[in-house]
Amino acid sequence: MADKIRNLEIRGARNVAISAVKAIENAATHTKAKTAEAFAEELLQAKEVLYAARPTEPLMRNAIKWVIGSVESSQKDEVKALVRLISSSACEFLTNLERSRDRIAEVGSKRINNGTVVFTHCHSSTVTHLLTKASKGMKTFRVICTETRPLFQGRVTAREMLELGVETTLIIDSATRCCIKQADLVIVGADALTAEGNVVNKIGTAAIALLAQEARVPFYVVSELLKFDPATLCGHYESIEERGRFEIWRGAPENLVIHNPAFEVVRRDFIHGIICEEGIIPPHSVYETVVRKYPWVLM
Amino acid sequence: MADKIRNLEIRGARNVAISAVKAIENAATHTKAKTAEAFAEELLQAKEVLYAARPTEPLMRNAIKWVIGSVESSQKDEVKALVRLISSSACEFLTNLERSRDRIAEVGSKRINNGTVVFTHCHSSTVTHLLTKASKGMKTFRVICTETRPLFQGRVTAREMLELGVETTLIIDSATRCCIKQADLVIVGADALTAEGNVVNKIGTAAIALLAQEARVPFYVVSELLKFDPATLCGHYESIEERGRFEIWRGAPENLVIHNPAFEVVRRDFIHGIICEEGIIPPHSVYETVVRKYPWVLM
Amino acid sequence: MADKIRNLEIRGARNVAISAVKAIENAATHTKAKTAEAFAEELLQAKEVLYAARPTEPLMRNAIKWVIGSVESSQKDEVKALVRLISSSACEFLTNLERSRDRIAEVGSKRINNGTVVFTHCHSSTVTHLLTKASKGMKTFRVICTETRPLFQGRVTAREMLELGVETTLIIDSATRCCIKQADLVIVGADALTAEGNVVNKIGTAAIALLAQEARVPFYVVSELLKFDPATLCGHYESIEERGRFEIWRGAPENLVIHNPAFEVVRRDFIHGIICEEGIIPPHSVYETVVRKYPWVLM
Amino acid sequence: MADKIRNLEIRGARNVAISAVKAIENAATHTKAKTAEAFAEELLQAKEVLYAARPTEPLMRNAIKWVIGSVESSQKDEVKALVRLISSSACEFLTNLERSRDRIAEVGSKRINNGTVVFTHCHSSTVTHLLTKASKGMKTFRVICTETRPLFQGRVTAREMLELGVETTLIIDSATRCCIKQADLVIVGADALTAEGNVVNKIGTAAIALLAQEARVPFYVVSELLKFDPATLCGHYESIEERGRFEIWRGAPENLVIHNPAFEVVRRDFIHGIICEEGIIPPHSVYETVVRKYPWVLM
Amino acid sequence: MADKIRNLEIRGARNVAISAVKAIENAATHTKAKTAEAFAEELLQAKEVLYAARPTEPLMRNAIKWVIGSVESSQKDEVKALVRLISSSACEFLTNLERSRDRIAEVGSKRINNGTVVFTHCHSSTVTHLLTKASKGMKTFRVICTETRPLFQGRVTAREMLELGVETTLIIDSATRCCIKQADLVIVGADALTAEGNVVNKIGTAAIALLAQEARVPFYVVSELLKFDPATLCGHYESIEERGRFEIWRGAPENLVIHNPAFEVVRRDFIHGIICEEGIIPPHSVYETVVRKYPWVLM
Amino acid sequence: MADKIRNLEIRGARNVAISAVKAIENAATHTKAKTAEAFAEELLQAKEVLYAARPTEPLMRNAIKWVIGSVESSQKDEVKALVRLISSSACEFLTNLERSRDRIAEVGSKRINNGTVVFTHCHSSTVTHLLTKASKGMKTFRVICTETRPLFQGRVTAREMLELGVETTLIIDSATRCCIKQADLVIVGADALTAEGNVVNKIGTAAIALLAQEARVPFYVVSELLKFDPATLCGHYESIEERGRFEIWRGAPENLVIHNPAFEVVRRDFIHGIICEEGIIPPHSVYETVVRKYPWVLM
Repeated sequence: MADKIRNLEIRGARNVAISAVKAIENAATHTKAKTAEAFAEELLQAKEVLYAARPTEPLMRNAIKWVIGSVESSQKDEVKALVRLISSSACEFLTNLERSRDRIAEVGSKRINNGTVVFTHCHSSTVTHLLTKASKGMKTFRVICTETRPLFQGRVTAREMLELGVETTLIIDSATRCCIKQADLVIVGADALTAEGNVVNKIGTAAIALLAQEARVPFYVVSELLKFDPATLCGHYESIEERGRFEIWRGAPENLVIHNPAFEVVRRDFIHGIICEEGIIPPHSVYETVVRKYPWVLM
Repeated sequence: MADKIRNLEIRGARNVAISAVKAIENAATHTKAKTAEAFAEELLQAKEVLYAARPTEPLMRNAIKWVIGSVESSQKDEVKALVRLISSSACEFLTNLERSRDRIAEVGSKRINNGTVVFTHCHSSTVTHLLTKASKGMKTFRVICTETRPLFQGRVTAREMLELGVETTLIIDSATRCCIKQADLVIVGADALTAEGNVVNKIGTAAIALLAQEARVPFYVVSELLKFDPATLCGHYESIEERGRFEIWRGAPENLVIHNPAFEVVRRDFIHGIICEEGIIPPHSVYETVVRKYPWVLM
Repeated sequence: MADKIRNLEIRGARNVAISAVKAIENAATHTKAKTAEAFAEELLQAKEVLYAARPTEPLMRNAIKWVIGSVESSQKDEVKALVRLISSSACEFLTNLERSRDRIAEVGSKRINNGTVVFTHCHSSTVTHLLTKASKGMKTFRVICTETRPLFQGRVTAREMLELGVETTLIIDSATRCCIKQADLVIVGADALTAEGNVVNKIGTAAIALLAQEARVPFYVVSELLKFDPATLCGHYESIEERGRFEIWRGAPENLVIHNPAFEVVRRDFIHGIICEEGIIPPHSVYETVVRKYPWVLM
Repeated sequence: MADKIRNLEIRGARNVAISAVKAIENAATHTKAKTAEAFAEELLQAKEVLYAARPTEPLMRNAIKWVIGSVESSQKDEVKALVRLISSSACEFLTNLERSRDRIAEVGSKRINNGTVVFTHCHSSTVTHLLTKASKGMKTFRVICTETRPLFQGRVTAREMLELGVETTLIIDSATRCCIKQADLVIVGADALTAEGNVVNKIGTAAIALLAQEARVPFYVVSELLKFDPATLCGHYESIEERGRFEIWRGAPENLVIHNPAFEVVRRDFIHGIICEEGIIPPHSVYETVVRKYPWVLM
Repeated sequence: MADKIRNLEIRGARNVAISAVKAIENAATHTKAKTAEAFAEELLQAKEVLYAARPTEPLMRNAIKWVIGSVESSQKDEVKALVRLISSSACEFLTNLERSRDRIAEVGSKRINNGTVVFTHCHSSTVTHLLTKASKGMKTFRVICTETRPLFQGRVTAREMLELGVETTLIIDSATRCCIKQADLVIVGADALTAEGNVVNKIGTAAIALLAQEARVPFYVVSELLKFDPATLCGHYESIEERGRFEIWRGAPENLVIHNPAFEVVRRDFIHGIICEEGIIPPHSVYETVVRKYPWVLM
Repeated sequence: MADKIRNLEIRGARNVAISAVKAIENAATHTKAKTAEAFAEELLQAKEVLYAARPTEPLMRNAIKWVIGSVESSQKDEVKALVRLISSSACEFLTNLERSRDRIAEVGSKRINNGTVVFTHCHSSTVTHLLTKASKGMKTFRVICTETRPLFQGRVTAREMLELGVETTLIIDSATRCCIKQADLVIVGADALTAEGNVVNKIGTAAIALLAQEARVPFYVVSELLKFDPATLCGHYESIEERGRFEIWRGAPENLVIHNPAFEVVRRDFIHGIICEEGIIPPHSVYETVVRKYPWVLM
């Protein structure tokens, strides 16, 4: 199981979390542990392996906390009962995640009217879910998306939009400033939410936020609240993954330094609202809202 | 000759201007005109062909004006004499261009000290000339350059820097915000200078200027004053070339709109100084300096 | 009753809410319903009629929710008892509203000292209540108010201030920039508070907020928390009433388009504090404070 | 003549200057002076009377300087010859003024394309001349104009635009912020240009400039260079006329202070370009351009 | 006891609070009161004396409230029991204070890595505690501190840092702008936290905050939440102590006005985070966090 | 002579320049040179000694250029005649300097009216000359000046103001933000003007400029145009003198780094106008104005 998890090649905070939850559920179902203690030990190991596999995935970590937490706080003794607990809390988590995404789509799609021009960056399944909802609500809007170097995830977004029948324009990342004035709003996803109210998202997002501000275009982030990273409350910076040089230039001269950070931080001052399962809230309230809604995340 | 010019595949404002001047000189040398009048007519045709080949190249236009202007203002009658005039003024122009670039390198390289980190975008021969000068002056500095989508001219800059032995970092365009704080200054080239004091340069430059301002990093433009476009004084916007979609995505879905502007305008407010053959001047003074130094450009 | 409500010509969020509450109480008192069910049905109709009469009046909506809610959550069966419930909760709402206004005046008037210059816009009974309190506290201050086109409500504010003996200056709306530097603070009212922490108020308020920021003059909004619009949490924009062209220019050429929005949104970034019944809070906390104090508003 | 001038009821810097020049020419033509000295004395008196009639009209002052200056620098002795000189220089001034306006219209109208939305404030004959030129050039654009309290000159602009067949929207001054994002550019006139590069124009202009900047909408000023006020070079502030209270509120309470400044200063930082007879220049260059083109203004 | 308290010469919000708590405990221990009533009366007097001794010390006030509050809410009758209650709640407060400081140091020191340059102002024992923690964690960082006129508390900070073996640079206050770009973050202490989310700290802090923002350097405040001043919720401005002229210039000319405010307000917009015992939170959440954690402060 | 010059202990750009000119004149008068060549050689040596004595004093350098330049461009052969030339050009320079200062005072004092509050920093004889002029013009204004650490030159300014009978307030440098809103304008001197339009002045000036901008207070610089440093045109940064540590803290711990830069650069964007002998001009025009008025400075 450990290997399977380590090599998981799933992309996007959401998919990673879902896989991790399923992996744990699977491991639990096939457990050979005889005692509750041994079972708990196994879970702990699974958790450690998963944490190590993906160092900065708050949604995955919160998901694991949710699922394994049910066992930790249970007073049952029998392994079978605990396995059932894992299954039910895994199911609960997945349902919550589904419902959050639907709620976000419902809330966020109200910001899109006929004729609206939406600017987005990279590919976020939460954003495209929202746009799908708006499109199925028979609204005729237009999308501008960046290609999103180095991996061109913007092309994925563009294809999905075209399949919905939405008029779509693709630009290179550095053409943002000359196109953003046409947009009525920016909507992007998130990889993590911090205690300060900042958002971690794909590299390039912070520049878009600044350019949106310069052009008075409102900038929204869609995110499940469970992307909140409790470690940031304790002073940890959200760590930024440095990815391989080949993603940017295969065959680059060897003595060339290639710096390839995957994410960056968008300061709360640039964000008009976080569209989450609670509705649209200011980024400054993310911490308070998590305290109120998911207090166990902070323990 | 017309065809040769039309198909010229030379890149960069500077090279285009040099080629155009040489083409005219060549055409003049091989003229079969018998009278000054017929010769002038030929030159006029050459000019029109060249203008049409490259719609927005102020340096080329000013170059042609310089060279053909010598005949227009001459009172000689003999074709041979006029041909010699063309040759000498072509030579004069090329010498001036060379000297301007050297002067720019000399002035600008003073801004680079040991340990300086220079940020640049795209590839500009004037910028790399300046950096070469600094490097040969035995200064040890570091360069950060963007890859510059869609055509990756940043790679050309990176190679040139590495050949000089300069430590070089390459990043994707959208990583600018997270790297610019390390830079001590930004230096970019220019395609055109406008009467308002703005600068036209490769797409992406304006966002870099804004991000440099946000991080209090001075932003310099190097440019020969002959890139001044007198049409902007009369209210013309510098027209922005829209390039082919295939540059961005070969095999893109057909119904996807791909918008690919080649240049954009950087407002004077973002520019700390224009490094030109006159020295470092505020962008606001470009027009006055051109009036003083090259009054014929404005006629 | 429906007709009476539809034609109500009362101005100001506060007065509209009071009238609606009284209308419901009145309707309840004169009910001919025999069963709790029939009574509830009547209330629902009254509510719908009132909602339709004024599409964007969160205070009125929250008032109705408060009053009718008492019946909805009651387990009583007898119509008479329910009527009494309506009466008592109507009374409770009105008392709360009164007390909120007094508390706002008490808190806000502490910001006014001898010699303070207060800038205000339009006419807000909550603002003038606050200024009355300050004036009765024997403080000698000065008020600058805009005339507030198109309906000149600023004149109402000016008259009220003069009656209090406060030295008052009236200016046209577009003289704001040249006068605001004299002001020590800006105080305006609100028509709605949004989940993002923004404020909806009379057209012209957002420009004043920007000009106040440019001159480093603190900008305060006074508002009862019950002006919070829960629909904004769900993604609805506060809808902006478009009023008649004749308000601006009677006898305008027919083919002239006259755009006359009554309100506009002031972003939280421009607001130093919301002075509400809880005290002075950052606009970012409005949502959390409502959750804590009036949780039923969000249900 | 003095009386006629003092009571002149002509509006707009341009019309005032034209009337003053005609008044001087008329006075000169009917002179009874026998000697050049007496004639010069008469002119001096006329000048003083005109200066006193309108304290802050740089265009008028420069016009008078132009016309009377011809006599001052002349070495002729005969009164008749001097009268002829006045006539010819008056004619010269008027022709220059006409030509400047045409040139401004020609240059500025290039900024207007099909579909462009132009925002303007108050009524400026130079602006409407420019828009007329654009409209006659068969471009289909749209104009948004403020009503411009207190005297509603925006209605004059609106009527002129409708007569040209231009689609026109009129708004109250304080609706600027919510409409300016639709605009592609702002064009306003000027009453005076200062040595610092600032512009004096109708009250309300500076707020529009700030709001345009906030929304990244370019802001242009059209002005003949002869509106340059040389007194500002010597440290004088352009004085701002305070107009009557009745313009704002007839029947206002007597103890109400009504502050009614007619103009305000727009700082050069907000101005993208001055469209003048020289072309489009940065406001920072106005002083240098006047030095070069009208050096006598500074003497 | 009253005298001892009045003359207390202790500096720093923290030390003042500790002394006041000890003074009360001491007074309680030596009480001669026979009845609970008399004892309560004594405590009230002690409180009043202490409040009067230091008009604006929210931490001291909250400390006293904490300690005396235990008696007020107790239902015991016996004086001895009440004295024990005072002792135990005094001890509790001091422990909480200690723990808060440790937690702040733990959280905040995570922001400091090897090579980090920290900028600080004045002397704050909470800041130096944090830096000590970072230094003992074997991190090699650098500190820049201002001298902090007029009393040169920056020298105290510098000495403490040098003793820790930290490389330290001292500058005059007005050299901040030219040094702040070298800093990776700013950390300062606080004298009071306000309901609006602002921070009161040593004069000079607000300018540093603005300069940090201009250079994109994050600005953090460390503060125990009990520095929250509940009076600010009710509209009171935090009052700013005006100190003696001799601190600035002994022997100044008598007719010279010397203005010497001890503190100033830093607006929440400039503050990246408040590092408190709860972790790092946005300043906008201070009020909500206090409501949640120390509700009695607001009563 | 060389020694005398090297040890000159005169402060202020103006006084240094005057002394240097007098030293050269004196040296010339006592020359023992027999030939023009020998005399020129002597002058060259004097120039080199003076340049070395004070590395960054553009006014002194321009002064020496002015005086020695007269000999260089002369065609006279006789030493006596050349000595007379030195004397007369020295006299000419000093007269020009005097006249420039008077003109600056005349122009700048017009910005001061009754009731105006002027904020200034450090001590500048040009600023106090201006204020003296305003004061003698019977205007009643108020001055706020910073103490200007480390050498307290602000006290000199304060004393001079008090002697004029001007109401004066002195504050510590870091109290600028809390006092600047009271000011109507800021006026400071300059040590150098650069080709980019920036100004070099006493450390602390740039922060004041930023704080003035934040509070919408206009910021003026008074300076003779001969403070223009032609080396900045060629790319040299104005070098910033690092002064002794003892100026800041006598007896500081030895391992404490004390950084004590004497000057800093104020960017043109913060400067409303340069008040020079030509009048009030935008800083952007300094270079063009020098080209026009003192072309020899650029040779």
